[in-house]
Amino acid sequence: MIATDASGMRTVKYGEVADWVLELEVVLADGSVTTVGSKAAKSSSGYNLLELIVGSEGTLGIVTRATLELAGRPEQIRGGRAVFPTLDDATAAVSDAVTAGVDVAKIELFDAETAMLANEYSDADLPERPMVFVEFHANHGIDEEIDFCRGVFEVHDVEAFEMAEGDRMDELWRARKDITYAAEAYDPECEMGQPGDVTVPIGSYPEMIRAVKDVADEHDLFVPCFGHAGDGNLHYFVLRDSDDPDEVARAKAAYGELVERALELGGTATGEHGIGAGKRAYLEPEHGGAAVGAMRAIKDALDPNGTLNPGTVVPDE
Amino acid sequence: MIATDASGMRTVKYGEVADWVLELEVVLADGSVTTVGSKAAKSSSGYNLLELIVGSEGTLGIVTRATLELAGRPEQIRGGRAVFPTLDDATAAVSDAVTAGVDVAKIELFDAETAMLANEYSDADLPERPMVFVEFHANHGIDEEIDFCRGVFEVHDVEAFEMAEGDRMDELWRARKDITYAAEAYDPECEMGQPGDVTVPIGSYPEMIRAVKDVADEHDLFVPCFGHAGDGNLHYFVLRDSDDPDEVARAKAAYGELVERALELGGTATGEHGIGAGKRAYLEPEHGGAAVGAMRAIKDALDPNGTLNPGTVVPDE
Repeated sequence: MIATDASGMRTVKYGEVADWVLELEVVLADGSVTTVGSKAAKSSSGYNLLELIVGSEGTLGIVTRATLELAGRPEQIRGGRAVFPTLDDATAAVSDAVTAGVDVAKIELFDAETAMLANEYSDADLPERPMVFVEFHANHGIDEEIDFCRGVFEVHDVEAFEMAEGDRMDELWRARKDITYAAEAYDPECEMGQPGDVTVPIGSYPEMIRAVKDVADEHDLFVPCFGHAGDGNLHYFVLRDSDDPDEVARAKAAYGELVERALELGGTATGEHGIGAGKRAYLEPEHGGAAVGAMRAIKDALDPNGTLNPGTVVPDE
Repeated sequence: MIATDASGMRTVKYGEVADWVLELEVVLADGSVTTVGSKAAKSSSGYNLLELIVGSEGTLGIVTRATLELAGRPEQIRGGRAVFPTLDDATAAVSDAVTAGVDVAKIELFDAETAMLANEYSDADLPERPMVFVEFHANHGIDEEIDFCRGVFEVHDVEAFEMAEGDRMDELWRARKDITYAAEAYDPECEMGQPGDVTVPIGSYPEMIRAVKDVADEHDLFVPCFGHAGDGNLHYFVLRDSDDPDEVARAKAAYGELVERALELGGTATGEHGIGAGKRAYLEPEHGGAAVGAMRAIKDALDPNGTLNPGTVVPDE
């Protein structure tokens, strides 16, 4: 999680992994062991090596110890699901809720196709409509926050809005938690391919989701789409038959087009999974030649022999 | 503010400048212009050049445009002052409030000497006792949060706890806002010297404040101390007569001893003001030779001719 600066469902409220890392012990390429960051809550001392190591996927140093901040458990936890007539209503509701400052701890989108997948997998019995899962954390006043959220959702014609706590909340959320298994189980002939991880400014989220649907239609592909909507992060699987070279090629083209669209909207190729080996081709389109040149200069300076996780993150010259 | 990753009174709730910077346009040493970061709320794409540029004090590139996140204005703002019998009570109250999760927007400490300075400067009429200024921001439920804070402060024998809004709140806070002017005006014979900016883990804040008082006594110096207590950041002025070489020497020694103490406690030499030219000697004691070596390698890689803000941040080899 430190290596990719991972994030997830709670990021909309609590931030990314980097926001919780205070100090790291790191083995550098020359074998020296150093500490980056400090145990203080903030620092303006020297270059931010801490944030450089976090998310560098083991290419600049190896993390051998980490000091993390902790947060208390909230006194109140409540959550549930909201169903919308159209996907545009659902994405606009999420975008408005986040920009209006509704204090959600999680806010997740399902398109109708994803709801259908979930129903196939279990007895979730979801309406096969676009929906938004939300969860709230507070020490007091959770009802006011839920009412604020409901008010924003009502502007976007929300059809059902059920919030609960405890077991009933878990039940309402179960389909979201199972979605990766549901997608894997859906069609034994199909594989999921590389999962999409683009992230766009929250105001462009509705447009990005429409782009996924348009690109899927254009290439005649089945692309269920869901994700950490509150961050502008979306995930999609291009379900494809690996024995069908034409479908594999169309899936690959669709994947690339969606990354391009996200970059046009001011976003990023990867919100939380990292570049690894598979997304190196997108680094320069996203950051430009000068920035990738700076990344390469840093890599060469800190790992001159290229021994640390070679073949990942920074593309070869 | 971007160059030093500045912070301040509201950091305890809202974070540092880096937490609000999404994207920067930067001119690199070779004259190329690049964009680092993106407009998305999060990213795991490549090395975090954004956080490397923020706080690099113009030594790695020149920022020519910035895209920042915005937050809404809170619906409720309330604040005031709490007075404590001893400095230990005041610092323990701050440390406990923050670690217990009291949602303060500002929480600032004055020692009795600082209260005295403030009284000399204006008709603030403060009790010359240790005190804590607090401010709360919320959209609802601000009374519950203030009660939570009062409860924690009562454990530490708080003697007075007055909260208000609007003009009365501003009045209660005025001495804190004037403190730099008050210190400058206090004794026309004295100068303030380099202001202390150490930051320690919040659990060590009481110990760090005691160290300031002990070091001041040891060197027979007048060192009023105050600061952004909620982050573990403290400021202190060593008031000294510039024409008295012995006092200047003692002030310098005291400054260095306090940085050493902060580093022993796991903290940093500078919480928000940066290294600049004046604190370069503390970079290696804080980060160690290997980390400073990595910083120097990055500097050499991105600015091989040393044209960007020379003589600052990274010490000469």
